[in-house]
Amino acid sequence: MPQKAIICTVDVVLLCLRGTVLNVALWRRERAPFEGSPALPGGYIHPEEDVDTLDAASRMLREKTGIASPYLEQLGTFSGASRDPRGWSISIAYYALLPAELIEQEPAPGLVLQAVEQLKGLPFDHKDIVQAAVQRVRNKSSYSSLPVYLCGEQFTLPRLQAVYEAVLGEPINKVSFRRKMEELDMLEAVEGAMETGRANRPAQLYRLKHEFQQCLSVSPRSLTAAAG
Amino acid sequence: MPQKAIICTVDVVLLCLRGTVLNVALWRRERAPFEGSPALPGGYIHPEEDVDTLDAASRMLREKTGIASPYLEQLGTFSGASRDPRGWSISIAYYALLPAELIEQEPAPGLVLQAVEQLKGLPFDHKDIVQAAVQRVRNKSSYSSLPVYLCGEQFTLPRLQAVYEAVLGEPINKVSFRRKMEELDMLEAVEGAMETGRANRPAQLYRLKHEFQQCLSVSPRSLTAAAG
Repeated sequence: MPQKAIICTVDVVLLCLRGTVLNVALWRRERAPFEGSPALPGGYIHPEEDVDTLDAASRMLREKTGIASPYLEQLGTFSGASRDPRGWSISIAYYALLPAELIEQEPAPGLVLQAVEQLKGLPFDHKDIVQAAVQRVRNKSSYSSLPVYLCGEQFTLPRLQAVYEAVLGEPINKVSFRRKMEELDMLEAVEGAMETGRANRPAQLYRLKHEFQQCLSVSPRSLTAAAG
Repeated sequence: MPQKAIICTVDVVLLCLRGTVLNVALWRRERAPFEGSPALPGGYIHPEEDVDTLDAASRMLREKTGIASPYLEQLGTFSGASRDPRGWSISIAYYALLPAELIEQEPAPGLVLQAVEQLKGLPFDHKDIVQAAVQRVRNKSSYSSLPVYLCGEQFTLPRLQAVYEAVLGEPINKVSFRRKMEELDMLEAVEGAMETGRANRPAQLYRLKHEFQQCLSVSPRSLTAAAG
């Protein structure tokens, strides 16, 4: 018996930090249902074109935001009879973290940023998907290199600590932070590169080691007591 | 443009402990492709019948193994053009942990157990799916109540420690183990129930608190240094 057709889509939760606030990139839907609503960039899987769902998510991101090959991780699959007015549907959701500059400098047409704590007007179960992504990012950030993807290519340690604190939502002791960074062993100093634009004395610039640009460094211990 | 049909299935990785060895329950396929091969219990989503993919996974488990409502968690979605000879497919994989007795006492017809380290003859990408489930269970066990689902309803602390050690694949210091169990705060002593069958002095029997029967207790710190 052939299976009754199920709507198969992918959606991407693209997160960035504006100041100390996590934002998600939304894209105004160009067609029904929910035409004009800000929604996660996503769409149908194209079996003739996509190798797998990760490939479909990369294509979607490229087509709708112009952003190529960030670190994309599968978040989970959202499904059921009631989430899409068109019928029984599956959405395989991915998430990616990016420096806000990448989105703000050349915003794709229709792309808007919303603070993740103040989501408004999202269709389908997209609000649940964003909240699940934020939860995943908060948990994973407490023991991994994940937040580094929110920084630009080069950054100082105080800047990186501020990024971790913004994601985790709490202050981190400087000594614990430095120890965790050593343990994760994911950073390298950029030879001869110092940040000099501030009033303080110049600070060394760091970047992610090559091997962690598409693969996380993880630690067995959390930076904070609260993360689960 | 209507979407070209994609094969939508769910698969369940059902794990149990025989002695100190993690085993997965496999089920001989009754039809092509791979008729007669031991495979993960799974099958097509039925949009007319299943509320969502979790519901489909529960139904599959009930139909193919006779097991009702264990703790089921989504593992991830496996997809692509090449994993199923019938065409572009998606499998949403779930995993569940059970006491081996539940499977061994009244084995469903066609159900076999295989040690997860010695998988043989699995079709599709089912070996990858099992390995991903084992990795997830090992990581999650180091900081949560997950392994308790491998025990029967009542167990002694030394038995539970042996279960944790079998899953994590390494010995655990008894003091650290007891401290972690207190921190997870998931167990309650069964009043007046002692295990007396052994040569040692009688040991108190414990059970999982009601609130953790379908929901994990998690800790921010790992029991072992190796888990990621």
